Amino acid sequence: MKVLFVAGDPKPERWTVPIKELLPEAEVHVWDPDGPAIDADYAIVWQPPAKLFEREKKLKAVFNLGAGIDGLLKVPNLPEDLTVVRLEDAGMSVQMAEYVLHQLLEASRGMETYREQQRQGIWKIHRPIKRSEWPVGVMGLGHIGKRVARTLADLDYRVNGWARSEHDLDGVRTYAGADELGEFLKSTRVLVNTLPLTDETRDIIDYELLSQLQPGAVLINVGRGEHLVEDDLLKVLDEGKLVRASLDVFRKEPLPEGHPFWQRNEITITPHISARTLRDATLEQITGKIRDHARGLTITGIVDTSRGY
Amino acid sequence: MKVLFVAGDPKPERWTVPIKELLPEAEVHVWDPDGPAIDADYAIVWQPPAKLFEREKKLKAVFNLGAGIDGLLKVPNLPEDLTVVRLEDAGMSVQMAEYVLHQLLEASRGMETYREQQRQGIWKIHRPIKRSEWPVGVMGLGHIGKRVARTLADLDYRVNGWARSEHDLDGVRTYAGADELGEFLKSTRVLVNTLPLTDETRDIIDYELLSQLQPGAVLINVGRGEHLVEDDLLKVLDEGKLVRASLDVFRKEPLPEGHPFWQRNEITITPHISARTLRDATLEQITGKIRDHARGLTITGIVDTSRGY
Repeated sequence: MKVLFVAGDPKPERWTVPIKELLPEAEVHVWDPDGPAIDADYAIVWQPPAKLFEREKKLKAVFNLGAGIDGLLKVPNLPEDLTVVRLEDAGMSVQMAEYVLHQLLEASRGMETYREQQRQGIWKIHRPIKRSEWPVGVMGLGHIGKRVARTLADLDYRVNGWARSEHDLDGVRTYAGADELGEFLKSTRVLVNTLPLTDETRDIIDYELLSQLQPGAVLINVGRGEHLVEDDLLKVLDEGKLVRASLDVFRKEPLPEGHPFWQRNEITITPHISARTLRDATLEQITGKIRDHARGLTITGIVDTSRGY
Repeated sequence: MKVLFVAGDPKPERWTVPIKELLPEAEVHVWDPDGPAIDADYAIVWQPPAKLFEREKKLKAVFNLGAGIDGLLKVPNLPEDLTVVRLEDAGMSVQMAEYVLHQLLEASRGMETYREQQRQGIWKIHRPIKRSEWPVGVMGLGHIGKRVARTLADLDYRVNGWARSEHDLDGVRTYAGADELGEFLKSTRVLVNTLPLTDETRDIIDYELLSQLQPGAVLINVGRGEHLVEDDLLKVLDEGKLVRASLDVFRKEPLPEGHPFWQRNEITITPHISARTLRDATLEQITGKIRDHARGLTITGIVDTSRGY
């Protein structure tokens, strides 16, 4: 069995060494842009070049090194019938859940105010929050969205969830489809985006959507930068319809120097770190699936490429 | 039935008006330092003056407006046989849990580094954390400690718990008594204090205790200021045995101007806001218990005054 590793890591041996250990039956190759075809059976990829699919014609499946497969699906010559497998969790959903809670508290409990008071040597207690004043709405109820929603519900927040299709979640009020989006937004003050990026969800967070949130609204975007219309965010902040945004993802990453987001006090910027792929958990998952697939067993995480997630 | 409200709130009607609504059968009085005895049946108190127990001799029970009853027990003439009832939760444990998680992430995920990067317009990703590198130890396994431990365990942290007596908690490794304290500390990097303040626990967080934590240790104190020997904290920070402390409680509150804690970058100071008494939930609980007690029913939260909690 031949496994091809295709990702822009300058030290690919950090990946290929453990892959060989976990999958001793495999011959492991690193992608060489100028090399010949090796007739790989499986490819492990992150944002691969189109050349991969020109050259490697024997691929049985391609494994994505992340949960969001928009970067893979946009490769123009990805064969339609190729099995595409996305990463399932691998420690990411729990990181996302704690990141969202951290950013929620920055807003709801005014943690920056207390830090500023400390810098000035001021002891001042502010009004405590009522959870009823901070209903949270999670867009996207995949593995990550569900974990985020459950964590917040366990901490006694009122949590709404919205997705394209219907979901049933303990302690979470769920809404489905375009018809119920308005009602979901009206019931939400803190909007958390965990949607997958598809043609349907691109630019979904725009002026109209943000304007429907409750007064004092907050946005936490841990989905993709392309979900958010950046000028519309600045507009709702200027108009006071939104009071704060925590952004971990951007249309262009790294966020360019001089981008207006850098200088806005109401925007918290983190460099796409809300959830990180943990190498060990990732490779255990992928090599396990490669072994199962090679043996003809069913594997989970196969993407419906027409749907986009 | 006569109920006496004894707390230093400049607007006591914020409490007495809802008490009258919740307990229409009661005659509700506000403590008057210079007034006569009113022969109250019940007192609702926060750090009451000794005069209360000199004057009011018919009290059947006294209800404390907080979970920690050290402020009440230190009143010298508190009658030994008086029923003392502490506040049970009333929305506090969940606030404590989210505060602790927030401070844990400040340390484990370096959130201040990302804020500083934003101020400088820098996009830089740091090494992701491994949960295995951040074992948390919760001292005190009362209602609050348990909630803190459970929240962190649900987020896949390794959680140790320590208390005077044995406890059994799902997903938490528990230690009991002085004999097992050393083992607990050795297994802990982030120490969270939720202990009640008693003669046994006063000054428990000292140089010797802090020195036994794992390298890169962090302290989160949401118990009482008197648990911590302040000079010893500065010493372990200076020696690098502790890298960070989040303190919400202090020996003297407000923390005095010029106190060395204010200027330390490794110390985060919040003005005793990790968990706030929520008036509605508090008064519903206390008035419900007063009604039950008056009817001869059993109530929960009665303090063992000899034990101190």
